[in-house]
Amino acid sequence: MSRIVMKFGGTSVADLDRIRNVAARVKREVEAGNEVAVVVSAMAGVTNQLVAWCQGLSPLHDAREYDAVVATGEQVTTGLLSIALQETGVEARSWQGWQIPIRTDNAHGKARIAGIEGAELIRRMQAGQVAVVSGFQGIGPDGRVTTLGRGGSDTSAVALAAALHADRCDIYTDVDGVYTTDPRIVPQARKLTQVTFEEMLELAGVGAKVLQVRSVGLAMRENLPLRVLSAFEDKPGTDIVAELSGDQMERNLIAGIAADRNEARITLTGVPDKPGTVAQVISPIAEAGIQVDMIVHAATPDTGVSDLTFTVPRASLAQSMAVIEQRKGEIGYEGLVHDDSVAKVSIVGVGIRSNPQLAAQMFEVLAERQINLLAVSTSEIKVSALIAEQELDLAVRVLHTAFGLDAAKESEGAAA
Amino acid sequence: MSRIVMKFGGTSVADLDRIRNVAARVKREVEAGNEVAVVVSAMAGVTNQLVAWCQGLSPLHDAREYDAVVATGEQVTTGLLSIALQETGVEARSWQGWQIPIRTDNAHGKARIAGIEGAELIRRMQAGQVAVVSGFQGIGPDGRVTTLGRGGSDTSAVALAAALHADRCDIYTDVDGVYTTDPRIVPQARKLTQVTFEEMLELAGVGAKVLQVRSVGLAMRENLPLRVLSAFEDKPGTDIVAELSGDQMERNLIAGIAADRNEARITLTGVPDKPGTVAQVISPIAEAGIQVDMIVHAATPDTGVSDLTFTVPRASLAQSMAVIEQRKGEIGYEGLVHDDSVAKVSIVGVGIRSNPQLAAQMFEVLAERQINLLAVSTSEIKVSALIAEQELDLAVRVLHTAFGLDAAKESEGAAA
Repeated sequence: MSRIVMKFGGTSVADLDRIRNVAARVKREVEAGNEVAVVVSAMAGVTNQLVAWCQGLSPLHDAREYDAVVATGEQVTTGLLSIALQETGVEARSWQGWQIPIRTDNAHGKARIAGIEGAELIRRMQAGQVAVVSGFQGIGPDGRVTTLGRGGSDTSAVALAAALHADRCDIYTDVDGVYTTDPRIVPQARKLTQVTFEEMLELAGVGAKVLQVRSVGLAMRENLPLRVLSAFEDKPGTDIVAELSGDQMERNLIAGIAADRNEARITLTGVPDKPGTVAQVISPIAEAGIQVDMIVHAATPDTGVSDLTFTVPRASLAQSMAVIEQRKGEIGYEGLVHDDSVAKVSIVGVGIRSNPQLAAQMFEVLAERQINLLAVSTSEIKVSALIAEQELDLAVRVLHTAFGLDAAKESEGAAA
Repeated sequence: MSRIVMKFGGTSVADLDRIRNVAARVKREVEAGNEVAVVVSAMAGVTNQLVAWCQGLSPLHDAREYDAVVATGEQVTTGLLSIALQETGVEARSWQGWQIPIRTDNAHGKARIAGIEGAELIRRMQAGQVAVVSGFQGIGPDGRVTTLGRGGSDTSAVALAAALHADRCDIYTDVDGVYTTDPRIVPQARKLTQVTFEEMLELAGVGAKVLQVRSVGLAMRENLPLRVLSAFEDKPGTDIVAELSGDQMERNLIAGIAADRNEARITLTGVPDKPGTVAQVISPIAEAGIQVDMIVHAATPDTGVSDLTFTVPRASLAQSMAVIEQRKGEIGYEGLVHDDSVAKVSIVGVGIRSNPQLAAQMFEVLAERQINLLAVSTSEIKVSALIAEQELDLAVRVLHTAFGLDAAKESEGAAA
């Protein structure tokens, strides 16, 4: 017997038939002897309608009233799913953020969970009652409803699972797991059986949009296993775990290839080569709320000047350029160039930590295909290369093949 | 300066434009120096959608989950109206039943208000903040959301006004006041300037569907003046008061004529004329939850038998007949006849109390038109006659004229 939290997003509860489908899945877990809490989002489309109403009345609407309005979407789903469960003979009741309570800070519209009182829910789950909980919402210090921001239901589910001392948190979604790369780029992409929290954070952070990054970080801190699986099909998903299990140690050293087109490059040439130059350039950009990613600082020997290249999100390019131009006198650079047709390809895997040759292998594979590296950055479990955007798909494909990630073809799979 | 509660029903908040219209009306009261609380219903159509979803999942859905679902309709309106008010520069915040709290009993789907804590709202209203309160809902003893049943928002408004020690409760609706009779029957029907609680109860109880009867009874007990007025047009409404004011004492003795088609008549003939017979017939019908209205028990002298006639709501006729037929041996009647083409016409007015000739006048007017009286009942401020349904419209018209209720014609009004 396990205690599990199941989370269903908006498309999984979009209409009464899909709510019945969710009830059937919950019933199966209950009949397997598990204690179950379910976290649900608003029915697809409902939140957008509620947001549109708020916008229609005032573009600068009060975030507290916005929260009171949009939190109703989840409340409706909890009541309907409870009714659907009761109809199939499963005892259930709905819980809103203020009833549990799920306490948050006062940052309406983007609140953070401060604490969840799990005792009463645990008591009822032990007595066989399914707790159907509104995701995405809580109650602030002043007794008003708060919301966690779009996509916050994943975080609600993980935080609730931690508070309930659950054995696992299952995230049901419209994809059926975490893949080695974007299947739209590489049709041979394979679903991973297991992936570590760290790998998932790197894969999510650079483009795999399966789970909210915040919820993965929380699960890692709480050491709470996650499972991503399809809400619509009965097939195995992907387990997200602290350490790969014994039978997974033979998995590829590389978990996946991440592709990110949301990159723009800025280069300052002829920058005085003295201590503090990098900070002088980067700090004002960071202070403007712009996330600087890769940074390359290359001094030309014996000239006293250097080139500084860095990347920012493409949408922040114009603002970043303005910040730099404002400080031209202060920084003292000669040239300023930018390029918004760059992209980032990364190999991600816990194997990188103990296998430094993996980075070299990546560069060799790209070099063989004449793909030029504009910048490189490495971390414990990730190596990223900045390349021309038109070479991104090719880079992902050749790396996917080179690191042994391609799925066996149908015929080979049948023969194996 | 007054403290007032304003109540707006579903059609008055049906879309963003109408919500803006409500905000403008509230702003006007605030600018007139009043402390204001607003009670709102769900946007028209929203509650029906929510109910349909519950029904779609289970015809016998749990009333507690039904309440959790349908209560969201009002929550949305409170948030949106608060945003609309803030947009016009009026300070406002939304309040749900559980936040105030509005405590109710545990009768989910048809709960009764047990108490409202008004202190915090009064404090904020005194500081200039408008309280925008969800009608129709509260919180039960177990911390779950309850609803008061359809139409309960009127009751919410009156109960809140009492708890806030308001000077007045204004009910904005899609009719513009209380009329002397149904204008569809008598085009000359006039809007009343004032009507007493008792008159309103009798008018509402017999067909005038302006206000929920329960809310009028509550206002009478709390001695809280009500005002019914149009949400869409700027014109005077009808004040509902404990006693007519001095300038209204010249009003007609009769406030209005009520028409009720929802009547069916049952007659038992040859019933033994002994004490307890009436109770023997009526009690089992009342026990079946059916409201018995008029009762006529006429003994034929020196025969030892009598005829017993009574009326029930038309929808309960078949069930009432079955109850009587089951008890034929016990009661010992000879014949049993029924008639569902009867109707009830009533004159209502505080003047009836001190003017017994008004009843006689009513009977004469009906007799002049050859309208046969099948039964008669009288109360302190009402005289009702049961007549054939096809004579109802004629009866209402002639009584309306005879008691001086017809509005002056346009031309006469202009000349006056």
